[in-house]
Amino acid sequence: MKNIKLLIEYDGTNYSGWQRQTNALSVQQVLEEALAELTGESITIIGSGRTDSGVHAKGQVANFATTSSIPPDKFSYAINTLIPPDIRILHSQEVSMDFHARYSAVAKRYRYSVLTRPHAPAIGRNYYYHIPDILDVDAMNDATRYIIGTHDFKAFQSGGASSKSTVRTVYEAYWKQEPPCRLYFNVKGNGFLYNMIRILVGTFIEIGRHKISSSDMKNILESGKRNNAGPTAPPHGLCLEQVYYRAY
Amino acid sequence: MKNIKLLIEYDGTNYSGWQRQTNALSVQQVLEEALAELTGESITIIGSGRTDSGVHAKGQVANFATTSSIPPDKFSYAINTLIPPDIRILHSQEVSMDFHARYSAVAKRYRYSVLTRPHAPAIGRNYYYHIPDILDVDAMNDATRYIIGTHDFKAFQSGGASSKSTVRTVYEAYWKQEPPCRLYFNVKGNGFLYNMIRILVGTFIEIGRHKISSSDMKNILESGKRNNAGPTAPPHGLCLEQVYYRAY
Repeated sequence: MKNIKLLIEYDGTNYSGWQRQTNALSVQQVLEEALAELTGESITIIGSGRTDSGVHAKGQVANFATTSSIPPDKFSYAINTLIPPDIRILHSQEVSMDFHARYSAVAKRYRYSVLTRPHAPAIGRNYYYHIPDILDVDAMNDATRYIIGTHDFKAFQSGGASSKSTVRTVYEAYWKQEPPCRLYFNVKGNGFLYNMIRILVGTFIEIGRHKISSSDMKNILESGKRNNAGPTAPPHGLCLEQVYYRAY
Repeated sequence: MKNIKLLIEYDGTNYSGWQRQTNALSVQQVLEEALAELTGESITIIGSGRTDSGVHAKGQVANFATTSSIPPDKFSYAINTLIPPDIRILHSQEVSMDFHARYSAVAKRYRYSVLTRPHAPAIGRNYYYHIPDILDVDAMNDATRYIIGTHDFKAFQSGGASSKSTVRTVYEAYWKQEPPCRLYFNVKGNGFLYNMIRILVGTFIEIGRHKISSSDMKNILESGKRNNAGPTAPPHGLCLEQVYYRAY
């Protein structure tokens, strides 16, 4: 038995997200079907975590156990011949049997992309949240200081979530501007609650529009109330960039 | 009668190119149909030039004459409500009647995007030419010196073209690397022959692969023979970035 680790890029536009669903196509299902065809085994893939419908990934990580004789580094090429071009396995390798894509992950980094100009983008329209307003990026960056560190992020969690603890640690969080009209929110943390990044982005945008002030981010966080935070930004601006593990 | 100038972005993936065709959908046709609906007039749009099927544009320019009472700066918003999201009018304005998007153009700037890594991209797969090899970018940049300036570019023109003169001036041309694996060819000139940029890129890539040397670019150019140049790079890596006009 071998444990194979995959590095996966996908365009989430046409998928119901990472996780297998009964009535909609997920990235996990596409990969499991390809592996069944390749190995003749019924394989369950373990992802580092879910991504929502429409969310992208440049660095999703997954693992699976197999008795297949396919060389570990050839799985990427073999799987890629069987799956649509909006999912690509970038790398495959054998790892120790105790590697678990979800439980072994120590941090994740995401990026949220925004385009601020009067008209929506034609090119890359599935990768940018379009906002036809000018945003105060300095104010948005000023507010990042309140979320960096270990906090109870309950106010930034969508209803229906089942996390036992809502305490998470954010290691870095900043907005970067690419003139004239591109904005990127980069955030790295030990984990994120359901919709946490999208609600944070929705709140930052309210700050950028001067609907609320930078320091309101602190009040919202301390209130623990979802209703005080901004709206949930749409999924298509979000991309899972990297999952971090201890050396394996 | 007013002359309206449009700045247009489009994702060329689903179009047969800019120019109207009898049996395939073009960007021009989409825009002319929208203008007919808006104005009740039968309007012909003049583009700065053709783009091939699959080629993108962030800065295509076009103009048309109309007697419509729609305020010139509102055409962008009005047209955008009637066309698919892979075409966006970024700006509209009234210009003098002697402005002609094609004949008044003095220069154009294009960018060709390449991704060099073992596996194709899932994200942005319609915008990058994927090459699973490492390219020698220094050698490619070294070869740009032979094409900068005024030359007969006959060797870099696809058959079936009908240009009277094959002499063109290239004002700037350089390859820019974005580590780890993105490469961009930026080129500005007073005009380009049919498929000229895509054949130049195909030739640069042969140089990057050390199949030919940098100085072979000079020999190919001087030979005037299409067969000596490299293959035509695929359309989807190419984007019309900007069309230049004298002040109007």
